[in-house]
Amino acid sequence: MDQRSGCPINLSVELFGDKWTLVVLRDIMFGNLRTYGELHANSLEGIATNILADRLKRLTAARLLTAAPDPAHKQRTIYSLTDEAIALVPVMAQLGAWGVKHLPAVSPQLAARAIALEDGGPAMWRDFEAELRWLHRGAAKPDRSVLAELDAAYRAAEGAGRAQ
Amino acid sequence: MDQRSGCPINLSVELFGDKWTLVVLRDIMFGNLRTYGELHANSLEGIATNILADRLKRLTAARLLTAAPDPAHKQRTIYSLTDEAIALVPVMAQLGAWGVKHLPAVSPQLAARAIALEDGGPAMWRDFEAELRWLHRGAAKPDRSVLAELDAAYRAAEGAGRAQ
Repeated sequence: MDQRSGCPINLSVELFGDKWTLVVLRDIMFGNLRTYGELHANSLEGIATNILADRLKRLTAARLLTAAPDPAHKQRTIYSLTDEAIALVPVMAQLGAWGVKHLPAVSPQLAARAIALEDGGPAMWRDFEAELRWLHRGAAKPDRSVLAELDAAYRAAEGAGRAQ
Repeated sequence: MDQRSGCPINLSVELFGDKWTLVVLRDIMFGNLRTYGELHANSLEGIATNILADRLKRLTAARLLTAAPDPAHKQRTIYSLTDEAIALVPVMAQLGAWGVKHLPAVSPQLAARAIALEDGGPAMWRDFEAELRWLHRGAAKPDRSVLAELDAAYRAAEGAGRAQ
């Protein structure tokens, strides 16, 4: 179950932290995965079901996530980032930036996203936080989509990899 | 053994990580504690001896620390940060800044240090990295001491607390 991915944040916290809590936060933040099913089906690291359930519970208890029933499927829970979790964007950006520079196992596509987020600096991090407040907290939709820019960086690196 | 401190970095990683590895790094980085004995005697969180020994071993294996015999006491080992560990300064700064804003249990004195480090921004972090390269890597001594500035912020907050 416990696979390694090339994600710089994952590799960073494998070195100096419990990776699963940060990995779940990362997937909600950067992948906009909002339900248990989406998080499990799209886990780069193959998170085990009991660990995912435990971390969603812990993150909700720690007030980093809120949980609400999906209006379309009442049995399904939708998780949203709180303002406290959204404020972790600079931590995530710095962890990613560090991982890219110091961990050779980082994959080129995920490195490209982390480099784009580092190069954007605090101005981009603030715009990303505004986008997350729209996606998770019902704030107004901002003009800039940092998620779209990060996806574009990822796809460009993927194309460059294929062309080699 | 496992006490809580008011340190914002400690409280942050208690939420989303294994705190001991980061706590040992923090004490070497911000406290300039360089030996097993110093780290154990000055641990804010009362780190257990077996956990401290394990984390020093892990950090050395991960190339975040180097270990060398103390020229004055051959049986004693002096630990030094590597360039990779010194590059974690911005991560530590952001973790501290986040903890101060979002965790009410942070102590005012340790908050003052974290706020000073956040307010200094990337220019201060680079100067701190230069100071750490002097203390740990044999680089030239820089003019500015960020450690002295952080200690002054701590003492000012301590004085303010006593005056209340």
